[in-house]
Amino acid sequence: MLTGLSAFPLTPMNESAIDEAAFVRLVERLVAAGVDSIGALGSTGNYAYLSREERARIARLAVAHAGDVPVIVGISALRTRDVLALAEDAQAAGASAVLLAPMSYQPLADEEVFGLYEAVSARLSVPLCVYDNPGTTRFQFSDELHGRIAALPGVASIKIPGVPAEPAAARERVARLRALVPPEVTIGVSGDAFAATGLNAGCDAWYSVIGGLFPETALAITRAARAGRQEEATALSQRLEPLWALFRQHGGSLRVVATAAELLGLAEPPSLPLPLRTLAGQERQQLAAVLETLGLA
Amino acid sequence: MLTGLSAFPLTPMNESAIDEAAFVRLVERLVAAGVDSIGALGSTGNYAYLSREERARIARLAVAHAGDVPVIVGISALRTRDVLALAEDAQAAGASAVLLAPMSYQPLADEEVFGLYEAVSARLSVPLCVYDNPGTTRFQFSDELHGRIAALPGVASIKIPGVPAEPAAARERVARLRALVPPEVTIGVSGDAFAATGLNAGCDAWYSVIGGLFPETALAITRAARAGRQEEATALSQRLEPLWALFRQHGGSLRVVATAAELLGLAEPPSLPLPLRTLAGQERQQLAAVLETLGLA
Repeated sequence: MLTGLSAFPLTPMNESAIDEAAFVRLVERLVAAGVDSIGALGSTGNYAYLSREERARIARLAVAHAGDVPVIVGISALRTRDVLALAEDAQAAGASAVLLAPMSYQPLADEEVFGLYEAVSARLSVPLCVYDNPGTTRFQFSDELHGRIAALPGVASIKIPGVPAEPAAARERVARLRALVPPEVTIGVSGDAFAATGLNAGCDAWYSVIGGLFPETALAITRAARAGRQEEATALSQRLEPLWALFRQHGGSLRVVATAAELLGLAEPPSLPLPLRTLAGQERQQLAAVLETLGLA
Repeated sequence: MLTGLSAFPLTPMNESAIDEAAFVRLVERLVAAGVDSIGALGSTGNYAYLSREERARIARLAVAHAGDVPVIVGISALRTRDVLALAEDAQAAGASAVLLAPMSYQPLADEEVFGLYEAVSARLSVPLCVYDNPGTTRFQFSDELHGRIAALPGVASIKIPGVPAEPAAARERVARLRALVPPEVTIGVSGDAFAATGLNAGCDAWYSVIGGLFPETALAITRAARAGRQEEATALSQRLEPLWALFRQHGGSLRVVATAAELLGLAEPPSLPLPLRTLAGQERQQLAAVLETLGLA
């Protein structure tokens, strides 16, 4: 299940509430496009900014509108107690899998992170995807720790934060991790700019931000790479370089993709929770021009 | 009010509940020692791991047992919406001031952080202390941003994360910041190992972790430095070097101080919220030996 394109939709919201109708529309677009799975309440889904009740509601909405598409639900929280409660909620909502990052306030030690995955995996009845995202969690997994966690019961996939840009180095990086994890555990790349390189290097999945808003574009890259048409996948990704440049410029993908959703009329501005802000003024116009040029507007 | 020794007590807890009796005992020790203020629900008080209701309860307990000692209550959260709610709760509990860090999941931009302080300070009727702690928030304040935020109404103090070890460089660092903030805004040092140097360099306050557990020890350093007895303050701090070494070794002060509270019988083990863990085995014995040597056991 945790292979191919896993598309992560935004959770549009403002200071009053979640825009549930907008979220459902985003999910329905993903189903219509035929993505392989939907990742609700990932970083792109702003899980960290929502209450337990809001997260349970979003999990239920995602499953209710996903049809036959498996839904992976993010259950990360600072405290193990809260992760366990969110895991229960996600399973009760009908999640096909859960996604867990070692979210931190106090920087975490390796044994603390292992203990978290050990405690949570022991209580799950659906597969778990390990979410390695140092840009938001500030925790650096060693490959050795990935290997120990991947051997826990129920661990089914690892979402890695990117691969080296050079293809041979990317293949080596994926092979090194693959050698340390059980054969049934899939490896998925994230960091959209790295996706084609990662898939070409042997990643089984792409956990994708742009897949949540532009599913056809992300599917074309995924299908090409998974069918062995590596040059096509690379070319399709390189075409999107103006978008990757904006991701780098704005400290990641979230503000750019949320602004794009607003520009496309798929979310009401403001769609991010304060203190986060979508792009304004000239930066917003620049994004609009890039979307136009790329045929994404 | 935001001068001298501000002592930050732990909030002992386990997976079931907060140990309210232990928290109250810690507060009462601080009052008996005569600290200048009490900082409830700072990083040492594990604010980030507690629910809104738990935080309101701790704020009320702190004020109820603090007598005439002013209580500063931490109101940080990932989302502005939640910070505003926590600010209301803290004021309703009787806090004399609030402490706000730019806690982050998505790394924050300067304008987002300024917007947070602008929104919160506009809604406060008690003074606000800016909490600059990149080790947990991963946000780096520029001095220029400190200056802009310090000019907002109600901003009364800045808690800085340390100073250079060399006295002249420390004086220069404090003077540079002082020149950018209004004269009534105090500057407080944190990072206990830097406290004597920071106070000698002209900081008005020490926002202190060890002050929350060993108030007499921290008061002696504070009183010496504030009275101009710089060499005495430095010597008293250097005597604690084995403790500072353990802070460095264990990724900060929290795990060490929580373990010390357990060793002293002031908190039941485990006293930290999972996934965080206090020291075990040989590391715990090493701390016990250090406390014994320093006369803190």
